[in-house]
Amino acid sequence: MTKYVYSFGDGKAEGSKEQKNLLGGKGANLAEMNTVGIPVPPGFTISTDVCTYYYDNDESYPDELAAQVDEALAATERVMGKRFGDAADPLLFSVRSGARVSMPGMMDTVLNLGLTDETVKGLIAATNNERLGWDSYRRFIEMFSNVVKGVDRGLFEEAMEEIKQDKGVKLDTELDAADLRRLTERNKAIYKDELGEDFPQDPRKQLWEAITAVFGSWNNPRAIVYRRINGIPHGWGTAVNVQAMVFGNMGDDSATGVAFTRDPATGAHDFFYGEFLLNAQGEDVVAGIRTPQQLTRAGSLQWAESQEIDEAVRAAEYPSLEELMPEVFTELDEIRVKLEAHYKDMQDIEFTIQQGKLWLLQTRTGKRTSAAAVKIAVDMAGEGLIDRSKALLRVDPRRLDDLLHPVFEQAALAEAKLLAKGLPASPGAATGKVVFKAEDAVAWAEKGEKVILVRLETSPEDIDGMNSAVGILTARGGMTSHAAVVARGMGKCCVSGCGELEIDYKAQRFEVAGVTVNEGDWISIDGSTGRVYAGRVTTVDPELTGDFGTFMGWADEVRRLGVRTNADTPHDAEVARGFGAEGIGLCRTEHMFFGDERILAMRQMIIADDSEGRRKALEKLLPYQREDFIGIFKAMKGLPVTIRALDPPLHEFLPHDEKEQRELAQALGVDVERIVNRIRQLAETNPMLGHRGCRLGIAYPEITAMQVRAIFEAACQCKRDGTEARPEVMIPLISTKAELDNQVEVVKKTAADVFEEQGLEVDYLVGTMIELPRAALTADKVAETAQFFSFGTNDLTQTTFGLSRDDSGKFLPEYVEQNILPVDPFQVLDQEGVGLLVEWAVEKGRKTNPNLKVGICGEHGGEPSSVEFCHRTGLNYVSCSPYRVPIARLAAAQAVVREG
Amino acid sequence: MTKYVYSFGDGKAEGSKEQKNLLGGKGANLAEMNTVGIPVPPGFTISTDVCTYYYDNDESYPDELAAQVDEALAATERVMGKRFGDAADPLLFSVRSGARVSMPGMMDTVLNLGLTDETVKGLIAATNNERLGWDSYRRFIEMFSNVVKGVDRGLFEEAMEEIKQDKGVKLDTELDAADLRRLTERNKAIYKDELGEDFPQDPRKQLWEAITAVFGSWNNPRAIVYRRINGIPHGWGTAVNVQAMVFGNMGDDSATGVAFTRDPATGAHDFFYGEFLLNAQGEDVVAGIRTPQQLTRAGSLQWAESQEIDEAVRAAEYPSLEELMPEVFTELDEIRVKLEAHYKDMQDIEFTIQQGKLWLLQTRTGKRTSAAAVKIAVDMAGEGLIDRSKALLRVDPRRLDDLLHPVFEQAALAEAKLLAKGLPASPGAATGKVVFKAEDAVAWAEKGEKVILVRLETSPEDIDGMNSAVGILTARGGMTSHAAVVARGMGKCCVSGCGELEIDYKAQRFEVAGVTVNEGDWISIDGSTGRVYAGRVTTVDPELTGDFGTFMGWADEVRRLGVRTNADTPHDAEVARGFGAEGIGLCRTEHMFFGDERILAMRQMIIADDSEGRRKALEKLLPYQREDFIGIFKAMKGLPVTIRALDPPLHEFLPHDEKEQRELAQALGVDVERIVNRIRQLAETNPMLGHRGCRLGIAYPEITAMQVRAIFEAACQCKRDGTEARPEVMIPLISTKAELDNQVEVVKKTAADVFEEQGLEVDYLVGTMIELPRAALTADKVAETAQFFSFGTNDLTQTTFGLSRDDSGKFLPEYVEQNILPVDPFQVLDQEGVGLLVEWAVEKGRKTNPNLKVGICGEHGGEPSSVEFCHRTGLNYVSCSPYRVPIARLAAAQAVVREG
Repeated sequence: MTKYVYSFGDGKAEGSKEQKNLLGGKGANLAEMNTVGIPVPPGFTISTDVCTYYYDNDESYPDELAAQVDEALAATERVMGKRFGDAADPLLFSVRSGARVSMPGMMDTVLNLGLTDETVKGLIAATNNERLGWDSYRRFIEMFSNVVKGVDRGLFEEAMEEIKQDKGVKLDTELDAADLRRLTERNKAIYKDELGEDFPQDPRKQLWEAITAVFGSWNNPRAIVYRRINGIPHGWGTAVNVQAMVFGNMGDDSATGVAFTRDPATGAHDFFYGEFLLNAQGEDVVAGIRTPQQLTRAGSLQWAESQEIDEAVRAAEYPSLEELMPEVFTELDEIRVKLEAHYKDMQDIEFTIQQGKLWLLQTRTGKRTSAAAVKIAVDMAGEGLIDRSKALLRVDPRRLDDLLHPVFEQAALAEAKLLAKGLPASPGAATGKVVFKAEDAVAWAEKGEKVILVRLETSPEDIDGMNSAVGILTARGGMTSHAAVVARGMGKCCVSGCGELEIDYKAQRFEVAGVTVNEGDWISIDGSTGRVYAGRVTTVDPELTGDFGTFMGWADEVRRLGVRTNADTPHDAEVARGFGAEGIGLCRTEHMFFGDERILAMRQMIIADDSEGRRKALEKLLPYQREDFIGIFKAMKGLPVTIRALDPPLHEFLPHDEKEQRELAQALGVDVERIVNRIRQLAETNPMLGHRGCRLGIAYPEITAMQVRAIFEAACQCKRDGTEARPEVMIPLISTKAELDNQVEVVKKTAADVFEEQGLEVDYLVGTMIELPRAALTADKVAETAQFFSFGTNDLTQTTFGLSRDDSGKFLPEYVEQNILPVDPFQVLDQEGVGLLVEWAVEKGRKTNPNLKVGICGEHGGEPSSVEFCHRTGLNYVSCSPYRVPIARLAAAQAVVREG
Repeated sequence: MTKYVYSFGDGKAEGSKEQKNLLGGKGANLAEMNTVGIPVPPGFTISTDVCTYYYDNDESYPDELAAQVDEALAATERVMGKRFGDAADPLLFSVRSGARVSMPGMMDTVLNLGLTDETVKGLIAATNNERLGWDSYRRFIEMFSNVVKGVDRGLFEEAMEEIKQDKGVKLDTELDAADLRRLTERNKAIYKDELGEDFPQDPRKQLWEAITAVFGSWNNPRAIVYRRINGIPHGWGTAVNVQAMVFGNMGDDSATGVAFTRDPATGAHDFFYGEFLLNAQGEDVVAGIRTPQQLTRAGSLQWAESQEIDEAVRAAEYPSLEELMPEVFTELDEIRVKLEAHYKDMQDIEFTIQQGKLWLLQTRTGKRTSAAAVKIAVDMAGEGLIDRSKALLRVDPRRLDDLLHPVFEQAALAEAKLLAKGLPASPGAATGKVVFKAEDAVAWAEKGEKVILVRLETSPEDIDGMNSAVGILTARGGMTSHAAVVARGMGKCCVSGCGELEIDYKAQRFEVAGVTVNEGDWISIDGSTGRVYAGRVTTVDPELTGDFGTFMGWADEVRRLGVRTNADTPHDAEVARGFGAEGIGLCRTEHMFFGDERILAMRQMIIADDSEGRRKALEKLLPYQREDFIGIFKAMKGLPVTIRALDPPLHEFLPHDEKEQRELAQALGVDVERIVNRIRQLAETNPMLGHRGCRLGIAYPEITAMQVRAIFEAACQCKRDGTEARPEVMIPLISTKAELDNQVEVVKKTAADVFEEQGLEVDYLVGTMIELPRAALTADKVAETAQFFSFGTNDLTQTTFGLSRDDSGKFLPEYVEQNILPVDPFQVLDQEGVGLLVEWAVEKGRKTNPNLKVGICGEHGGEPSSVEFCHRTGLNYVSCSPYRVPIARLAAAQAVVREG
């Protein structure tokens, strides 16, 4: 005889967690908990085989089924000491579907099954709560009618509405037992109107109808679509779980509560964290009307102290469960240990005590703060509960950010006025006075003010101002806009693309949500959430614990992927080294040209008519660049430093407003017309696809030569001072090998010149960004010259998608919302398209040059799923902004662990 | 005994054209011509085996060589009836290198070898020309010293300069025999100074030194580099060709001339086209000092008539060769027939008659006009000289353009003043009055004026003006700028990127080359050469001959690739059908929105706040679009018409200047602020990568719906009127399948609605442009939905290279010049990079959808090498601008022929 029904209860179960295919995920887990000795309400699971049988046999059941259900039902009755359909004290059931994998398309839960006109009286007697009895019954009718029989839920809502209007009240809670009894009658009438029959008064009929409804729901259209989309075979079928209901509101020997096996805020487990209410239902705890009591005496004492409650009052009014029901408490505490031993993770528990008997309603992995996650992982590994590999998977790399940046004080935040919401462009919290100009940010900061720089969008000219500000807020631009990228690089908080802001530069103010914020007014921004608040909100600095160090050390032991940082200044380089960066993967040189004296020489270079004029101006820039590189080499203490040659189009360096143009003309002693003409001449329709990257170096080889000279003079200087420098010169934006060849020749010649002049040599590499599809497609050729590739996946994403970072903010969010794109490809590497190019290029490049070093330096280098992709694709390293270095380290380690 | 030396002469030769490996290309051809019976000056070839021996044996010669050279030399003497080194009438030689393939890196020719202090006197006696004798000798010393012995040529130039200064003259020709004799002495002195020995007076020593120099030149650095770049094995070696010199200036029984086997201007061969000079050298013909005479009497009579020369004068002063030397003429005429029979193509011949004996100095394939090329190909196939496949290869497809567009009259052109040179953006010649505004072009044209529209660059707003103008001239933009693309589409001549123009819109004038051209002044532009002329230059319309039709018919029989056209108007569609287009591969719909009333509705749509407002405006556009499509469907008479949904970003449709913005506000009854705000809101940093293509259709599905409705209402209307319409709806700029899915749903739903309303159905396809790398990379997915792909290789080139068409004009020419790119990838498809994506997408797409129709509609569809690529890659069709249709047809046929 085939076994179709699997009972569980009272510490025994016929199934186990290995039988997900037969019992569904939920059924297997209910069985498992029983076996482990967790007291869960008993019940039984009807296997997926029945579902298969049902559809194979014209929607009928195997002959043996009814008897097996009866038997399992009887077993449940025995465990609960109650009878199904007992008019005096009825056993009630919940009925749920449960496939191998969770399937939202299927039947919801039906609760309180077994209530009838008769049994409702028994429930009222047992709970001594008439309102609860009728409320349960009218709800059961609604659920059964809707979920099992498909009656429109709106009809019941209307009925409820009418009764409330009759009584002149607004809230469901204002209805008393008599009202709910009336509603029950109305619901039954609706059932009859809709279905042409009376609401079933036979609990067994209710049960079988519910079972059949579950099996029927396997083939409802929603479920079919869901399976098609998610690739779930239609042949799997679902199981049905029938489980006894328990009540925490059956008197003072009953209670309900929630608990965590460790403190979800800190990860501590010095005592058992949890709360409960006597004679209450789960909803009462959630509703927060009554003050919940603590599980342990220690917890209770601590709580009373924090609330300034006298011990006498506490002991009388808010005793702990440990004090009130010591035996139940001990049982629960033992369960805590058992659950952690079994699930090997911190659990979030719901329990109910029904007339002195403890039932676990749910146990699930508990949510926790990032700090708690790290501590729990390290502690559990220390306790031997899990090994280090598992521990590494226990922390979401993305959330490490929380540990590195200031956050708003919770209490202060609760009182703050929310002004607007933009994009969470660079994490952390900041509070400061509003300024609208980069130069004001610098000036105010020098006077000791904390300022937040508010701009429509930022440009390279604003770098100094951004650096002086504590935070940046922009009205335009996405997660990878200039403001966002630079802010992340600086580890500075930034909210970008806050489109609601109406900024008026002239009046030095912005308006949002009916509020006018003037220059000098305080605002607070949260770069982790994108929220903008009025006024000052206190921030709290994070503290990196020893656990963090231990944890990251484990990550480093495991990972094979190198982690470098994108850093343009010695300060960034030092911060990143502190976070564990093993080199610089991208040092942009253009930001170095925006200092006061530098920008003038830079502009002079751009205005120059011929290479002679350019060379003169470049000679002025050389010492600055050299000093920059010396600073960076020294900060990196012998770690490799990848320096990218000048990349942005020259027009980015010229002043945009007339006043500055006149000043520049005066400073350079030329006609303002000449400046304006040059700006007009350099203007581009699509600067992203314009005269930039190596195209500049090819047109003006003297620029490349100056930069390379500065690099090697700096490297020689460092070597002389006792610091090894390992420069890796990177040529940007190539699309053909010939472009790279052209620039590599300049690099090699200049290096040779410098080495001869200096009388010493340093080892170096020359390589290229792979940031255009054509470079990736012809990687075999490019690798004949390149010693390394660094994927610039920001630009590669732009060109592969034909999508401008600067402009896509207008429609990309809508794309993600409509599921045309699963995620923003500028945040998460598009493995299907862009990733294909990366894989192709790595394979082709290494075929030509087996020693080719390959890294990634786009924003994706700090995004976990992208880091995992880089690991899988065999890259040598990822490079990301300093504050993302720990994220990348952990993600790289997780990639190894997941590989198994 | 190994044979190392191969003689030729007097109609006999020891080698043949099959022996290129042994005798080099030149040697094999000299042997061949002899065998065919062409009287070429006799001589001998020393084989490449000697070169190999030379390098394998420490730069020495095989023992047998000297005797073989002596023997061959004696044979040459016998044929010429002269002796090498004969003081009375010396035989002189030329010595040349000759490898298997032509190699510019190797030794040049040495002429007049064999002249010494003694033999020069014999030459003077034989030619009765003392000046010629000394001039030949001093030149020989220069050539020998420089080419054979490596003496700096500059030293001889200085010597010449000194002698001219001494004499106070400026030109070489002003030196007399005595001067040149002095110069000969000086040159000998230089030789001795530089090399420490006397100039060799033994002709055999001269000969051996020259032979050794040729073998030595095989390994000079230039030749080695050339071989490396071109992949020529170093082991091949070179041969040496020693050939007797002949002189056409040995008296009135001597002559020299050039001839063509058919008329290179028209292809006619009613008589023998050619000219000669009595008692002259080749240089004299080229120098044009004396009036050359015609070969045939018929030609001579015709010439005399055109020059209005009396028959008596003609017969006395300019008799034909036919009349003067009838036997020699007959021989030459027989050679003409022989050469064509042998080379199977029109030949360009150089000949010399030395003392009554005819020598062919050179025969090569003759250059010809496009019209001649077509006629010669058709005639030769008719004569059975070549088959049709060969005939098809005889015309360069790119030059078919010449046959379709007006050209300048040659005589008028000779007198025109060249103002500037831009890019040859759209072929043809035009002359007209300058206007600077599109609206002026329209207004003036309506008054019957021929105008040339001169702009910095054009934009879609200028379409009407461009259409009204006879030609377009722009200061900015490349070969694929807006002006260029649209002009080619219109078949209108255009010169773009003419950077020298300084246009002053305000003053309505431009300056160039010191000339000011005002509005209303005449200029003439040649879109085939990029030249801009002042004033009116008469143009001539081309006439399409029957030969053209015959020839293109042959092409159509052979080709397998379909050829469609890009056409936006019924007019373009008709022109293209006239040129043989088999459908429309790209019908852009955006140009349709620029008409007076349309643009207002379009702008109203863009300004609208919500989809309701947009829909209202779109309803106004619907009838216009429907009429457009009816016109195009009717013009195409049942051929397929691929219609692309709206592609450009919306801001392109809004007015740029304040005045127009105010007018628009008034017309729409809104505040001008609203217009300005919307323009600001829509502004994009990189519009090429912005909110355009399907991204518009996804954001505003009502736009797609309106366009699709217009298409299907038009198709139904046509069907009702008895014209089958075959619309293919094309979604632009997709990067993911989901985007296509979204738009295809709109298309299918709208089509179904229209069919139901109209009560009839038409067959249609829905497909997509593949113009972004990601679409190509994920073509397997995209093909699940798409019924066809059309490669938009313009945009695909932009994104694959990361290169903006609009901006790259500033540096792309430099790139091509520096050989960083072999050609402009916007003109010639980059097969290595962009082509790889095309191949990938075709393969992946067809794997998913074997019925996938694949075409190309970028500018490359009319470029021969790109068409060949499309054929090879298995595309179904190419689509190009109407005037390029014949080019594509021929290129597609040639691709088949070349496949063999």
